[in-house]
Amino acid sequence: MLNPIPERQWDTRRTEKRRRQDLGAKIATGKVVPTGDIVRFLETITAPGDRVVLEGNNQKQADFLSRALAEADPSHVHDLHMIIPSVSRVEHLDLFERGIARKLDFAYAGAQSVRISQFLEDGLLEVGAIHTYIELYSRLYVDLTPQIVLTAGYKADRDGNLYTGPSTEDSPALVEAAAFRDGIVIAQVNEIVDDPADLPRVDIPGSWIDYVVQSDKPFFCEPLFTRDPRLIKPVHILMAMMAIRGIYERHNVQSLNHGIGFNTAAIELILPTYGEQLGLKGKICKYWTLNPHPTLIPAIESGWVESVHSFGSELGMEDYVAARPDVFFTGRDGSMRSNRALCQLAGQYAVDLFIGSTLQIDGDGHSSTVTRGRLSGFGGAPNMGHNPGGRRHATPAWLDLIETDDPLARGRKLVVQMVETFQAGGKPTFVESMDAVQVAKDSGMPLAPVMIYGDDVTHVLTEEGIAYLYKARSLEERRRMIAAVAGVTPIGMRHDPATTRQMRSDGLIALPEDLGVHRAQATRSLLAARSMADLVEWSGGLYNPPARFRSW
Amino acid sequence: MLNPIPERQWDTRRTEKRRRQDLGAKIATGKVVPTGDIVRFLETITAPGDRVVLEGNNQKQADFLSRALAEADPSHVHDLHMIIPSVSRVEHLDLFERGIARKLDFAYAGAQSVRISQFLEDGLLEVGAIHTYIELYSRLYVDLTPQIVLTAGYKADRDGNLYTGPSTEDSPALVEAAAFRDGIVIAQVNEIVDDPADLPRVDIPGSWIDYVVQSDKPFFCEPLFTRDPRLIKPVHILMAMMAIRGIYERHNVQSLNHGIGFNTAAIELILPTYGEQLGLKGKICKYWTLNPHPTLIPAIESGWVESVHSFGSELGMEDYVAARPDVFFTGRDGSMRSNRALCQLAGQYAVDLFIGSTLQIDGDGHSSTVTRGRLSGFGGAPNMGHNPGGRRHATPAWLDLIETDDPLARGRKLVVQMVETFQAGGKPTFVESMDAVQVAKDSGMPLAPVMIYGDDVTHVLTEEGIAYLYKARSLEERRRMIAAVAGVTPIGMRHDPATTRQMRSDGLIALPEDLGVHRAQATRSLLAARSMADLVEWSGGLYNPPARFRSW
Repeated sequence: MLNPIPERQWDTRRTEKRRRQDLGAKIATGKVVPTGDIVRFLETITAPGDRVVLEGNNQKQADFLSRALAEADPSHVHDLHMIIPSVSRVEHLDLFERGIARKLDFAYAGAQSVRISQFLEDGLLEVGAIHTYIELYSRLYVDLTPQIVLTAGYKADRDGNLYTGPSTEDSPALVEAAAFRDGIVIAQVNEIVDDPADLPRVDIPGSWIDYVVQSDKPFFCEPLFTRDPRLIKPVHILMAMMAIRGIYERHNVQSLNHGIGFNTAAIELILPTYGEQLGLKGKICKYWTLNPHPTLIPAIESGWVESVHSFGSELGMEDYVAARPDVFFTGRDGSMRSNRALCQLAGQYAVDLFIGSTLQIDGDGHSSTVTRGRLSGFGGAPNMGHNPGGRRHATPAWLDLIETDDPLARGRKLVVQMVETFQAGGKPTFVESMDAVQVAKDSGMPLAPVMIYGDDVTHVLTEEGIAYLYKARSLEERRRMIAAVAGVTPIGMRHDPATTRQMRSDGLIALPEDLGVHRAQATRSLLAARSMADLVEWSGGLYNPPARFRSW
Repeated sequence: MLNPIPERQWDTRRTEKRRRQDLGAKIATGKVVPTGDIVRFLETITAPGDRVVLEGNNQKQADFLSRALAEADPSHVHDLHMIIPSVSRVEHLDLFERGIARKLDFAYAGAQSVRISQFLEDGLLEVGAIHTYIELYSRLYVDLTPQIVLTAGYKADRDGNLYTGPSTEDSPALVEAAAFRDGIVIAQVNEIVDDPADLPRVDIPGSWIDYVVQSDKPFFCEPLFTRDPRLIKPVHILMAMMAIRGIYERHNVQSLNHGIGFNTAAIELILPTYGEQLGLKGKICKYWTLNPHPTLIPAIESGWVESVHSFGSELGMEDYVAARPDVFFTGRDGSMRSNRALCQLAGQYAVDLFIGSTLQIDGDGHSSTVTRGRLSGFGGAPNMGHNPGGRRHATPAWLDLIETDDPLARGRKLVVQMVETFQAGGKPTFVESMDAVQVAKDSGMPLAPVMIYGDDVTHVLTEEGIAYLYKARSLEERRRMIAAVAGVTPIGMRHDPATTRQMRSDGLIALPEDLGVHRAQATRSLLAARSMADLVEWSGGLYNPPARFRSW
């Protein structure tokens, strides 16, 4: 055998962590960092070039820590490699403007998508890659192990035991990567309690958390999943009726994920009316993976919903969720525990159907929300909106999409794109070429930022009808089916009426009348709740909408 | 709006849990169940028809609890729906023989695969589905939420804080599903400590665990990933050389998962010799997702390995892992923390390559380890051994498999099947039809239990050569490529020498000489360690092989 290599140091990470902690000990008292010293503390504990995970996540923001980091002195703290699941705060990009950070790996950028584009162009920022949430967590355990993790919770004790509140979200997946590879974990909390017994529950054990700091104000949390029923239009209701009859009922969909659009909110709100009339209660839509959407309240109250597992929480839904433990995942303290990693996993592998919306679809069925000048990222949609080739268990809906009698055929995840043929402002949804293709070229990305690929889409649903894409026997046929439901968009104008008639009779596409859906019934009177006030009433007063939704 | 439904009870699960806990309080003292009372306790706390998760997992076994459950009185405890990731203990099936359990959802069955087949035939057992590990965890949050979870760890305190030891494995994913939906969690531990400070660390917070019980003996843990280098044959070494040159080097593979065969052990053992000669150190194979394979020790010691994240642990590797924290994920107590859910996620989404072996491959490239009379299940292979359609970040290896200049093309995960053309006993690996197809027919399964589907395989590597399947332009071409490396098996006999020559010159297949691999060099002298004793020496005495491997 070869001679083993001479003595080498195998705990450089641990040694470096100890060195930094020795410096940090001059500021912190045990694990507690004084609020006013946080900038100095971060300067002390961070080194240039560090990989820093910042819990900017879909809803919950470690905003006290991100503001503090952005105030650090760039001569001490620079060239950080930031890993931010959701880039959503102004200071996330200030880090780059000030030279504190240099490289960014992320999954989603909402309000900051324009600025990312601009910074990239100006050379202020280098993008590692755009991921789905769950890919980004995965890489924390492979090639992006962090030196520092900045996270957020409601409460901690002085030993670091952390109660996240209902928005547990990304925290466990982010923290574990540092806690078990000699990284440093710092948690901002709204309150530090002296007595561990004052923590409602422990979401993350104290031995995983190195420091806690009380924030100057409670962390910011976005109500991203609240849709005011008042804004649901008859066209959404027509599409929702088609979804229920032409997809959920037809394929026997038991478990599902809904996106956040008004289309899917309409489905949620007509289950107790239209769905009930069809006698479908208890037969479909029993198991859900989604955040606590307020528009799901009427379906829950009328007994449609067996369970809801959530990625995150939703502002105003805390009391309602806590009062419905048979439905939601709650801790023994009574409040919800969400978990984005596990819910994304469930949304990928354990549900029959994903249904979502998008901004642009091309003639092949590829879709994206990236438009010129906006590098918005993917979030979780690509993870849930594809047919997972690693799935091995069967369900009726999954099996129902098999179109051959090959004994080696496998079922398919239902991936539904539910869009109006035109967006607000008269922009066509169906386009010759997605902006994403040009964006990739302009910014030198190795791949076009496609949200969902055409070959993963099983159904396209528009106000015109449903295209059952999983039945397409060729790319050409898939294109014809998409064109047939694309209305008067450039793609829709390609359709040939004779072909469309044939495809209808072959069952490749279906118009409302083919599904027994009556357009005249598609009115707002079909909504179980027509306003935020109605939702509050359905909830028995437990739902407490954020101020901006309180217009009554 | 509709009138909300009249008063309904929304905490039936919590109420039922409380009812059972009141009964349990007559036996337990606080959270501690006396060892001798465990059978009676399980009879008390369980109800007929419960969904019970039992941590029979890949290595760690909640065996005290499974033995106790199998001793329960079937007149009290019956018709349980068992959810067991890995069915590996005799008593797992005794549960069915005794009428205590009725239905089984699982992912893998090793030693018990024959008995499952038999029980299924005898009508003693109903299979829900065969899953991958990660699918099964996912369903715990959707339609298989458990009433009871039986888990295992090294130590707990009287508040239930749990130290799992290095084999954290499935525990967090299993426990969370019950802890946050009013299920009951019972943990067996080797030791209960009075003082929480005597726990090395906390892997699962006490507020998630309802009961702890000291087992009669330490939990069983299988050394599944130990391969004695003495059993590595020159043919394995030849194949390993081809893998390194023809796949790892060619595609620039940075991050990877290895299966547990002698083939992949050979790769691990020639990195410090052959790989070093090729000047590849620091260029490939830096980030690993796999258990602490003893055969990886020489590569680690000679500086090939940046990091290893693990599904589980490996008996005998505890001290070595603890002494190499720069490489392995360890807690602040120094011992490893594995996490099967996160590592499967990483193996799916964050690595360039999966390489594994199988028992049968058909002419289309489909493969399975299920053979007649053995319902062995899938474990994690299908999850890691497919091209995840939800992946959006690019790496050089992933991009290298793009074969078109379509701007909407995406890269591919490398999925390599590395097999000898014949199995031990002269059975061909390449077969006309996999046994799995017949097994499905015989047992009325909705799908053939295929481990990895042909269209997910990018490379087939045999002692004959490598077929670069991702280059196949048609199913016909894929078949020809497979036949070309299938030796004198029935599939291999189909190959036409002229076609093979053409495919070689087109780069569709490669023989050792095409890769610059010299057959004469493929001897055991290339192995960095040729015996268990060599591995111990490489480890500086830190590796402590289980008795059965100590033959020197």
